[in-house]
Amino acid sequence: MKPFPTLFVDLDIVRSNIQRMAGKTTDHSLEFRPHFKTHQSHKIGRMFREFGVSGITVSSVKMAEYFLNDGWDDITIAFPANVLATSYYDNIAQQASLKTLIISAEVVRLLDRKMAQEMGLYIEIDPDYGRSGIPVSETDTIQNVLSAIEESEHFYPAGFYCHAGHTYQSRSAEEVKEISSKALGQLQGLKDHFPGLPICFGDTPSCSVLDDFGPADQLSPGNFVFYDWMQVEIGSCSPNEIAVYMECPVIEKFPDRNQVLIHGGAVHFSKDFIEIGGIKSFGEPMLKYLSKETYLKSLSQEHGIIQCSNEVFKKINIGETIQIFPIHSCLTADLMREYHTNDGQVLDHMNGNKL
Amino acid sequence: MKPFPTLFVDLDIVRSNIQRMAGKTTDHSLEFRPHFKTHQSHKIGRMFREFGVSGITVSSVKMAEYFLNDGWDDITIAFPANVLATSYYDNIAQQASLKTLIISAEVVRLLDRKMAQEMGLYIEIDPDYGRSGIPVSETDTIQNVLSAIEESEHFYPAGFYCHAGHTYQSRSAEEVKEISSKALGQLQGLKDHFPGLPICFGDTPSCSVLDDFGPADQLSPGNFVFYDWMQVEIGSCSPNEIAVYMECPVIEKFPDRNQVLIHGGAVHFSKDFIEIGGIKSFGEPMLKYLSKETYLKSLSQEHGIIQCSNEVFKKINIGETIQIFPIHSCLTADLMREYHTNDGQVLDHMNGNKL
Repeated sequence: MKPFPTLFVDLDIVRSNIQRMAGKTTDHSLEFRPHFKTHQSHKIGRMFREFGVSGITVSSVKMAEYFLNDGWDDITIAFPANVLATSYYDNIAQQASLKTLIISAEVVRLLDRKMAQEMGLYIEIDPDYGRSGIPVSETDTIQNVLSAIEESEHFYPAGFYCHAGHTYQSRSAEEVKEISSKALGQLQGLKDHFPGLPICFGDTPSCSVLDDFGPADQLSPGNFVFYDWMQVEIGSCSPNEIAVYMECPVIEKFPDRNQVLIHGGAVHFSKDFIEIGGIKSFGEPMLKYLSKETYLKSLSQEHGIIQCSNEVFKKINIGETIQIFPIHSCLTADLMREYHTNDGQVLDHMNGNKL
Repeated sequence: MKPFPTLFVDLDIVRSNIQRMAGKTTDHSLEFRPHFKTHQSHKIGRMFREFGVSGITVSSVKMAEYFLNDGWDDITIAFPANVLATSYYDNIAQQASLKTLIISAEVVRLLDRKMAQEMGLYIEIDPDYGRSGIPVSETDTIQNVLSAIEESEHFYPAGFYCHAGHTYQSRSAEEVKEISSKALGQLQGLKDHFPGLPICFGDTPSCSVLDDFGPADQLSPGNFVFYDWMQVEIGSCSPNEIAVYMECPVIEKFPDRNQVLIHGGAVHFSKDFIEIGGIKSFGEPMLKYLSKETYLKSLSQEHGIIQCSNEVFKKINIGETIQIFPIHSCLTADLMREYHTNDGQVLDHMNGNKL
């Protein structure tokens, strides 16, 4: 038993999650460009090569450099281009086929003045999610950006990139399908208007539940490699498809309130939570299968408090450990910075090992 | 201008925050045992030595080891004792005066069987906060734990430790005073019952606003070294006492919704937020002084969206950077893992440098 909070990964589940998604892209003749922001690991990244993956997606320049260093040479930074980072783009683009996202003609022109290398630009399309991108209905704006790319010295149009992040509001596979089918319908209109440009589509809920990807040409989901309890609640996966869990020491028990104090706090899990029936949960103990009344109720920097049913409370012992599914595996992995397996391997994470 | 999200620290403000709190402890003849969980930095820790500090507080075994390595030899781990970590306690206690917290006689006995070195145990008292500790009114339980410590082979009673974390619910200095005065009143009763045992008291809101610490003998606040926007809202400090800010690149502007996309997300700020008038804020742009309508509205892994007033929106330019106060500086520093100063220094953080 580990004396401190530890993140475990089950590589069999990881492989099966990758295989299922890779199979889906093959069945639908789509290019699989998985997002590596969830695992941020060379060793887990290499598992994708077994399924023929050669092009990948990342969320930052630093992550692109990390995977470039492990031999990946076709990389999309799925974040809108940063005018202050052109020397970093040039450096990566000298060694790999680099693509990133673009939203405005203004930024195309600002980048073009500063860059030396060639880079692909995906025009980011907003399918009513409201975070970033050009609203899918604004074809004039899209045409302006496309013209700016075509007139530029350094860029070529890589296609359209679309993240339907509002599927995360769903609480069933049916709701996910409703939202993502609407987004794909809008993208079909885009394809009719701009034929010949590939569409890259990519949130984990949509990619997990859809059987028809309409106009999409490429899929770039990320979270599915691990999944997490948020994805269970959304309707993307079942609990036995979650590939990571935290193991935390049980420190104290408070019998008057059926609560257990664990070592495992905001610096381990992250403060992301889900609300189920008005109750916030920061993590789901695997013992939960015994009771819906058991959940990680609150976190401070190092403390976690698990609220328990009577039955579960009795099964938890001071000086042992408890296994907990993270709510949001991307953020938990980003904080934990290494992965342990049950047979004693330790796998890398971009952020380096926890001290 | 930095091309990526960067955490800046103003060491003049840090020094002035330390000086004010150190002066307060001197004025009230209290021992100052500052909590180092906020900065987690050797270089910032050393600034406390200028004010005569020799005993410190940390929140984990790993943090105790980090500061032991910089010559600190009187360390309290302000987290209830972990039965699985006794070999780590032994190792630290061989080199320093080590104290930690205890809540139950059961754990005293479990630890005693496994440890070899001497260690001080603070009995943790819960002043109606409800996270951990023995409720202050349960004198029989407290007596039981005290007896177990006295009967043990390796431990001595270090005193009582009390964290009134419910002051964080306050929204004015008066509310903080009301909650902390009530807690100190309860601790006075404890002192009358168990005279001779020192009381260590320590949340930043209480320590910032109180002028009378009643029965307390030691103060161990942590966050005050930097403060943050949460502490401004609580009533602990003013904005010009906040010693850290994030600098983030401005990526895009969305004129139809007065929103700005920055590079700066959950992996930089943390997902901690405050709710003001029903509106969640994940960070407070320093431009906010121009408008209450401007705040960091949402975060995903790398994206941040700033909602702006008309006036502020016009002042923000793509390709520049924007300065933002964190909501919770402890978690932001834990994620950013290094500090930059305006004159080009880079200060250490326990977690090591961001890649």
